[in-house]
Amino acid sequence: MTEDRLRQFEPIFYPRSIAVVGASRNRLKFGTLYLDALINAGFKGKLYPVHPDGGEVSGLEAFPSVRDIPGPVDYVIVAIPALHVLQVLDDCAAKGAKVVQFFTAGFSETGEEEGRRLEREMVNKARQGGFRIIGPNCIGVYCPANNMPYGPVAQLGNAGTVAVISQSGGHAGSILEIGMMRGIHFSKIVSFGNGCDLNTVDYLEYFAIDPETTIIGAYVEGVKQGRRFFQLAREVSKTKPLVIWKGGKTEAGAEAAASHTGALAISESIWSAVLKQAGVVKVESLEELTDTLLTFQHFRPFLGDNVAIIAGLAGGGGGESVSSTDACTSAGLNVPRFNEETRRRLKAILPAAGSILRNPLDMGGVGGFVDVLEKTMEIVLADSEINIIIINEHFDSLAGFLSWETLERMNDVFIRFRKNQHKPIVVVSRPGFNNAERSALEQKLCAAQISIYPSLDRAARAIANMNWYYRFHRGSR
Amino acid sequence: MTEDRLRQFEPIFYPRSIAVVGASRNRLKFGTLYLDALINAGFKGKLYPVHPDGGEVSGLEAFPSVRDIPGPVDYVIVAIPALHVLQVLDDCAAKGAKVVQFFTAGFSETGEEEGRRLEREMVNKARQGGFRIIGPNCIGVYCPANNMPYGPVAQLGNAGTVAVISQSGGHAGSILEIGMMRGIHFSKIVSFGNGCDLNTVDYLEYFAIDPETTIIGAYVEGVKQGRRFFQLAREVSKTKPLVIWKGGKTEAGAEAAASHTGALAISESIWSAVLKQAGVVKVESLEELTDTLLTFQHFRPFLGDNVAIIAGLAGGGGGESVSSTDACTSAGLNVPRFNEETRRRLKAILPAAGSILRNPLDMGGVGGFVDVLEKTMEIVLADSEINIIIINEHFDSLAGFLSWETLERMNDVFIRFRKNQHKPIVVVSRPGFNNAERSALEQKLCAAQISIYPSLDRAARAIANMNWYYRFHRGSR
Repeated sequence: MTEDRLRQFEPIFYPRSIAVVGASRNRLKFGTLYLDALINAGFKGKLYPVHPDGGEVSGLEAFPSVRDIPGPVDYVIVAIPALHVLQVLDDCAAKGAKVVQFFTAGFSETGEEEGRRLEREMVNKARQGGFRIIGPNCIGVYCPANNMPYGPVAQLGNAGTVAVISQSGGHAGSILEIGMMRGIHFSKIVSFGNGCDLNTVDYLEYFAIDPETTIIGAYVEGVKQGRRFFQLAREVSKTKPLVIWKGGKTEAGAEAAASHTGALAISESIWSAVLKQAGVVKVESLEELTDTLLTFQHFRPFLGDNVAIIAGLAGGGGGESVSSTDACTSAGLNVPRFNEETRRRLKAILPAAGSILRNPLDMGGVGGFVDVLEKTMEIVLADSEINIIIINEHFDSLAGFLSWETLERMNDVFIRFRKNQHKPIVVVSRPGFNNAERSALEQKLCAAQISIYPSLDRAARAIANMNWYYRFHRGSR
Repeated sequence: MTEDRLRQFEPIFYPRSIAVVGASRNRLKFGTLYLDALINAGFKGKLYPVHPDGGEVSGLEAFPSVRDIPGPVDYVIVAIPALHVLQVLDDCAAKGAKVVQFFTAGFSETGEEEGRRLEREMVNKARQGGFRIIGPNCIGVYCPANNMPYGPVAQLGNAGTVAVISQSGGHAGSILEIGMMRGIHFSKIVSFGNGCDLNTVDYLEYFAIDPETTIIGAYVEGVKQGRRFFQLAREVSKTKPLVIWKGGKTEAGAEAAASHTGALAISESIWSAVLKQAGVVKVESLEELTDTLLTFQHFRPFLGDNVAIIAGLAGGGGGESVSSTDACTSAGLNVPRFNEETRRRLKAILPAAGSILRNPLDMGGVGGFVDVLEKTMEIVLADSEINIIIINEHFDSLAGFLSWETLERMNDVFIRFRKNQHKPIVVVSRPGFNNAERSALEQKLCAAQISIYPSLDRAARAIANMNWYYRFHRGSR
């Protein structure tokens, strides 16, 4: 069963050949954009443009139909108007293709009977032809290990172990973009739009057993097999963290969802209750979804809510101490007092005026003295009450007082501790005036698996989400 | 009374001369940083370094004490250890200084009796000497029209009409930094730390009548004259929007506040209830505070909750349509259907497949055709149901499909409509890989008074805050 499913999904993420129906000499057509992205991303298998005129497209021989392609075809991308798709499916069946992905839209999401009828017909053809359908009305698949880019966007990020299932191609693209920026490394992403054949349940079944995937994120507007979905979510989340963002939670949003992917609505309160009972992490926005996936990716399971916050590296940390305490405790974390020993040791190295020797620790501006910072980290990490450290450092503000070089040396301290001990260390830094120095610093922290969050509220929420998950499943692990 | 108060605050924001006690040849001392920032910002009045050794500091003649300065001194900045401050105050009194600002910390915020005693003594000396105190334990004043920079940060933004009162120097600095980036233009900012003399109530009384200020934001940890404060807040907000972020809302946060500025806690539920009754906009974070100030700054009062959302400029707008509807309706805004006429007109210019001809409007990828975009904006703005337009455009994503040049031409359309008609137009764009093109585009939109928010949730919340304010005060205007 497991082997069967893995074998069935192999051509979806690791096709050895792809035909692109709708690629042409018009460089702005989506078919051409898909083909060019595959070429530019260095897709490792064979590529076949399909266009009635034949000839050459993007330097490759084009074929009038999928049938005419000489070698075997695993995967077909379709980006032509809806009225031609049934013919293409007949060609795919004749050719023995295994997967057909439809960028083409104009089906059940239109709300018209004709669109629904077409989808039913497509599924019939798929069953008869022995292939599966991704979509229609979707961007499709991203699989960096196979140099499969996300639709027309050629850029590939590092391959990792986070899988994403999305009913929205746009949101999947946003998740990928944010991941590239913030260091979330994906095993696979799939956007499947209307999901007339394969849908959330199928992909979830697959990612549950996919050895390349350890964490699963999903954007869901509605599910067609509610009971099966919730059952599955419960099973999956026992072994892999499952983080779900549900679109259409308001009545108006649900209406929009109906006309986006034809999703049937399940009431928000039922979703919330059932997912929670299933041990699924439910998030409320794109930001919370990506923050939470990043947090799961970077930290081994830990079950501690006790946060130490270090602020005021270049002074002015008093207000941050107050609002970061608010943020953590509102999210359900604790900001406990340091123990006696910790306070005694901190007092010996930090100046009395300006710094506040409690948790949050306001360093009173001496964070730029790297030896003091190193010692401070060592002392705080040694406090047995503390499970995690949040560094409050706004890169641009600090760079206004110190130099980027000092800032880099300070962050090297965090990186060393991240490597050499097990307590999670994360950084909070507001978005700022970007520049080369800032980008380099961020990339360095990302590479060292130190997550950067744009606000303490967001860091606290993501950490609390992870803790909730591990606490929920403690019994079952 | 009004004239008196304006006259009393004149030397705080428009001093003609400033002495900096603690400036020295050590460039890293805070006193020196303050002095250098004043020089670099082009402060228009006279500057006097004060240092026991005299000599020359940063190219200016230094004096052993404030008394020794030859000309009149309006404003004194003190950045020396706490144990010397009483002597300095005697000198200030002798010199006839009008305002003394203490960067120096180590007073009541230490929680020790000695600190509280010192502060009482300082206030006594101020009363006897006829001057006022800002701080201690604060960064002080920012007044761009007078080239007064914010403490050691020399950079000045454009002068505007937003005033900020903050008990935290760090948060005031963050507000300023965010404002510079996002186009919030300040009349004045004051951080006053422990506020032993002038405090929230005094500054609020002043900004209420300050002709340079039309909007007031405040970060408050606690107030000493609760009744007076709430009364005042009610009065002020009748004529100027007052937006308050309260730090220390959780029990743990309140404890942190006590050791930051010695603020006495008032329970969160009382704060919320009283501020709401007073017609004050209460916000929950730095982000919400700055989003809301920006929104007030950019839009004339309007009383409409009906939002049109335009998404999918380069395709993939379906998911955005769903989650942006969720965001707006969760914040209390409406996303109404377009009227018959609007839909008819949109149908005539937008492609049937891929775009969803409802509100949110998913443009199905044709946003790059500037004439279509222009026509679309015209049609949507003409819909009498619609009060405000939110453009969902993620700059980096769009730039992946279109060119930065096309993106600029598209945004020129929004800028033209912003100028030539009265319905607010705002932009939502995620933070991305920054680069010169993106920065230029953002600056251009800022300059045209189009607010950019990093998420639809944040845009919706800020707009809803503004609407709440104007609705609350409709009766009293």
